Amino acid sequence: MKHTNGILEIPGDSVGFVTTKYYTFANPPHDLLLTSGKKIGPVTLAYETYGELNEDRSNAILILHALSGTAHAAGYHGPDDLYPGWWDTYIGPGKIFDTNKYFILCSNVIGGCNGSTGPSSINPGTGREYALDFPIVTISDMVNAQWHLVRHLGIPRLLAAAGGSMGGMQALQWAISYPDMVQSVVAIATSSSLSAQGIAFNEVARQAIFRDPRWNNGNYYHSEKPHDGLALARMIGHITYMSEKLMHEKFGRKLQNSDLFSFNFDSEFMVESYLHHQGIKFVSRFDANSFLYITKAIDYFDLRADYGGSLMKAFENVSADFLLISYTSDWLYPSEQSREIMRALRANGIHAVYTEIESDFGHDTFLLDDERTQRNVANFLRSEFDRIRNSNGYHARGI
Amino acid sequence: MKHTNGILEIPGDSVGFVTTKYYTFANPPHDLLLTSGKKIGPVTLAYETYGELNEDRSNAILILHALSGTAHAAGYHGPDDLYPGWWDTYIGPGKIFDTNKYFILCSNVIGGCNGSTGPSSINPGTGREYALDFPIVTISDMVNAQWHLVRHLGIPRLLAAAGGSMGGMQALQWAISYPDMVQSVVAIATSSSLSAQGIAFNEVARQAIFRDPRWNNGNYYHSEKPHDGLALARMIGHITYMSEKLMHEKFGRKLQNSDLFSFNFDSEFMVESYLHHQGIKFVSRFDANSFLYITKAIDYFDLRADYGGSLMKAFENVSADFLLISYTSDWLYPSEQSREIMRALRANGIHAVYTEIESDFGHDTFLLDDERTQRNVANFLRSEFDRIRNSNGYHARGI
Repeated sequence: MKHTNGILEIPGDSVGFVTTKYYTFANPPHDLLLTSGKKIGPVTLAYETYGELNEDRSNAILILHALSGTAHAAGYHGPDDLYPGWWDTYIGPGKIFDTNKYFILCSNVIGGCNGSTGPSSINPGTGREYALDFPIVTISDMVNAQWHLVRHLGIPRLLAAAGGSMGGMQALQWAISYPDMVQSVVAIATSSSLSAQGIAFNEVARQAIFRDPRWNNGNYYHSEKPHDGLALARMIGHITYMSEKLMHEKFGRKLQNSDLFSFNFDSEFMVESYLHHQGIKFVSRFDANSFLYITKAIDYFDLRADYGGSLMKAFENVSADFLLISYTSDWLYPSEQSREIMRALRANGIHAVYTEIESDFGHDTFLLDDERTQRNVANFLRSEFDRIRNSNGYHARGI
Repeated sequence: MKHTNGILEIPGDSVGFVTTKYYTFANPPHDLLLTSGKKIGPVTLAYETYGELNEDRSNAILILHALSGTAHAAGYHGPDDLYPGWWDTYIGPGKIFDTNKYFILCSNVIGGCNGSTGPSSINPGTGREYALDFPIVTISDMVNAQWHLVRHLGIPRLLAAAGGSMGGMQALQWAISYPDMVQSVVAIATSSSLSAQGIAFNEVARQAIFRDPRWNNGNYYHSEKPHDGLALARMIGHITYMSEKLMHEKFGRKLQNSDLFSFNFDSEFMVESYLHHQGIKFVSRFDANSFLYITKAIDYFDLRADYGGSLMKAFENVSADFLLISYTSDWLYPSEQSREIMRALRANGIHAVYTEIESDFGHDTFLLDDERTQRNVANFLRSEFDRIRNSNGYHARGI
């Protein structure tokens, strides 16, 4: 995106200006029942759509965001926007998620802080922010809330549920929770459950927030916010999103402002400045309590848990096709975790494609303009869309 | 070690009861000149020795500790000690560092908090703790301080300088700073400079301390200590000392007290409890400011820096033999960093042995009872000791 003479030039393959919409459901007494057994209602989901739903309503793709994502996946909210939506390189006319062809939907997760009901929302029971009275939500709960939105939009079945990282977890969960409603799954840089090391990193990040006195047991909405803790949490997370090699090549041991050591505790290495910058950027757009809830949902995610510890059993009733992609340098969601899912899918005779992409960019590769990821997703989607348009033949072939 | 009826049973291969000693030097105006250009004095080093210096003073081995180590490398301070020194599995009669044969010396680094001069020591200029008035120290400064102690003990030349992690950095630095005084180097799980990722982890750990309000810009010695920040710093560090595989096998996704999720923010996964335990244990024995100074020294360490960016040049005047050991699952100090040192040593025609040991235990393997590490070190030391005892023949052979 360019600004020429202060005027935003929208590229031709952009969805252009978009508006976030809101859908509220689960109005009491029809609250949303959560995995924990608690109920919550009403629930609002913020969402955006790009492209048009076709006549037979067979071209809808649900895009699922990662930890810090939002409903704003593509385009611009206005002429002053410095950056487009978080997956803009993937979504637009002629792009991978081609809005000339597909109807794209992305919603902010329940528990989030970008328009959907979460800990910073007003609790109708008290008239104040939920804060820690917000119930713990799971990846299943996020998916169940999205189900209401998908039904509301008149979509009987998703051509694809697609996402990376926590978005990939939701995509997998969609295929299991609503097997009749998911034609295909695109799950990138993800896992059927977070590793012990992943839980460890989430816990130290949460502790950075808990230990910030401004966090105040979650009650900071009318006072100073726990920016110190949230920024540190983000810094910790950011280390895990990059590969060691990328950090080495991007920063190495280079200093920020000088050739000489400062011999004090200033953050003088470029890698330190970079992390501080990431931390500071984050606090202006994210709620510390949402960070706690969403990382907890990621920690709890375990597809085996409801199936006696068997990943194969978890996929037993699934009818979707799958595309899995992992990255060689992703050490937070290592390739072996995708291969594990592949084995479980194939043991069920499910049509599943897996690509391990050589990348130095670590976990965050899925957010970048990676040509190989895009080509794989585009080919898979094209084939899925062809199949659904010829669905009798497709089912008859039993592929 | 066992307690029978409350009585400590000292194993036969233990050095038994030991006492920490102290040596003070660099009394003004003969202060120690630091890398930063600042001076400090007097300087006290806490140290322990095990075994006896032989008549020709050729059997002295200097043991160098890592980030959180102390001078107490072996034996017990008293009958109530629950644990022996930090490298007790390596040091004792008949052990790898055989105290029947070698004279073992270990000192706490300058900047530390276990008896050596550091930020928690009294600044003679003010009568109060140095806190952040303590000058930044480097690995070189640690080594220069040790040099005073080695000379004080009448050791003309070290049979070996040996350590893991930051201890390995000091061992390498000894060979470069004092080439005539080092017969051999044992450098385990170490590097010629910390990676960008390593600096990143040290920085987020330091930030955990800086952001604890009890840290109070380093002035907490007469008030509540920044235990929250220091414990979190240790938790972050501890993740990096273990391999992902070890975490998986040791904890996986197991819960601490229940089979069911708590659906709150308690630390319920075993891996979380383990990290909390490590954090809490640490604050009772370590000073937060020392953590800042020592991690900074590690970040600054770069053998190339004084040699125009050439690691080969750094070793040009070195006469020591080298044993390098790395561990396959050590992702904080990956094997490639040891291989890099090996290439520089061999380019200088230096006698150097390298072993990459298959281990699932990550960086901390060097602290464990690892038989392959011990065998490699024992063989290397035996050969070095034989060489020095026949030193004329040795030099004549030009090996």
